[in-house]
Amino acid sequence: MDNFKFSDPEVKKGVEAVERGEMVFIFDSDSREGETDFVIAASAITPDDVRWMRRDGGGLICTALADEVCTTLGLPFMADLLAEGAGRWPAIGNIVEQAGDLAYDSRSSFSIWVNHRDTRTGIPDNDRALTINKLAEISEKGRNGEAVVFGDDFRAPGHVALLRAAEGLVENRRGQTELSVALAQMAGITPVMVVCEMLDDTNGKALSKEDARTYAQLHGCVFLEGAQITKVYKEWVARQKK
Amino acid sequence: MDNFKFSDPEVKKGVEAVERGEMVFIFDSDSREGETDFVIAASAITPDDVRWMRRDGGGLICTALADEVCTTLGLPFMADLLAEGAGRWPAIGNIVEQAGDLAYDSRSSFSIWVNHRDTRTGIPDNDRALTINKLAEISEKGRNGEAVVFGDDFRAPGHVALLRAAEGLVENRRGQTELSVALAQMAGITPVMVVCEMLDDTNGKALSKEDARTYAQLHGCVFLEGAQITKVYKEWVARQKK
Repeated sequence: MDNFKFSDPEVKKGVEAVERGEMVFIFDSDSREGETDFVIAASAITPDDVRWMRRDGGGLICTALADEVCTTLGLPFMADLLAEGAGRWPAIGNIVEQAGDLAYDSRSSFSIWVNHRDTRTGIPDNDRALTINKLAEISEKGRNGEAVVFGDDFRAPGHVALLRAAEGLVENRRGQTELSVALAQMAGITPVMVVCEMLDDTNGKALSKEDARTYAQLHGCVFLEGAQITKVYKEWVARQKK
Repeated sequence: MDNFKFSDPEVKKGVEAVERGEMVFIFDSDSREGETDFVIAASAITPDDVRWMRRDGGGLICTALADEVCTTLGLPFMADLLAEGAGRWPAIGNIVEQAGDLAYDSRSSFSIWVNHRDTRTGIPDNDRALTINKLAEISEKGRNGEAVVFGDDFRAPGHVALLRAAEGLVENRRGQTELSVALAQMAGITPVMVVCEMLDDTNGKALSKEDARTYAQLHGCVFLEGAQITKVYKEWVARQKK
């Protein structure tokens, strides 16, 4: 981060935590999903972290990848794959989300679901951690210009959802997918992050922002809102262009 | 169940529990996944059940549908959809599982992931329960010959995985997908069931059969092994044919 001056000390702490492979928490915004996610680097996640996310988060454990990584690996958006299949399965044409379908954004970032080929069923904590660690590994190889064939190491369908970040990240979409990858970029690590929604155990809804913030504090973790990350990331990008 | 004589009293209890909308537990077999699933009727699941499954199970919360229901609704296997997309995204052709890829079966039963259109993000317990209840509802309408358009009520990608049971159920495949739908058929309810793998919180693996059995007993729930269900289901099918 060569002398970049963070205008927000909390975002600086979050970037440093991500760099060290620690868990951080991101609330997107009241006007979007209104959800807080557990967030950690894919390269650093352990089976214990997977258990922590599934037990105390409760949402889907997904791996968010930078757009350019997905291009290198050849990973499509699920919505595009479904649209492609509509010729053979007409019912799908009507299922796939259209602009305006989502209350909180113009489109979802889901790509395909995968397992690493060395997993057995793919779902236990050891399996999911392996799949995710290997996703970071192949992504880093791809970024370094090594020839990679995604299907040699991974199979689908599987138990870890891939999320494809928007090009330009928070300039174009401000979901946890883009916010988490933006932290990774500023941290200078492989831009592949794990996210999992925090659900409330008492009312069937997403955990409230205040309860999520309290949870993060209790665990000594950084809690960030999307707007904080967006502001700093734009400053960081502007500086990179100089 | 008009006077069908169950040769296994535990399976009878399991079928009756499923009919009443109660949770049961199914261990597939030592030679297959070696995993126990939480299992409950899709028509009966509540947000509390979703929370129970995600907290104490920890796997993916999936909805298993009978093959004929999937045909009516127009739902493909994900593996077929991926193969179809390989023309446009060549990397996918190599990702999609091939015969021999899975250690425990010839193929996975994953179809697509969906949300009901009345959900917001799709992931909180209330949202997932709604999606699953509505899956049972549209399946029942389809079975009764009503004209249904799946995409009018559901969108994809989403947060609830659909599993497409093999034709003939346990005659052709003996995963939790087929075993749970077999219980639903014998119970005479809509053949749409919810399953979620039980993970171990101490060692990163699937919960052992003995620990799962103890858990079921503690909660006063029926625990069944795949072989028990398979045996009785075959007897039940033979009797239906008379």
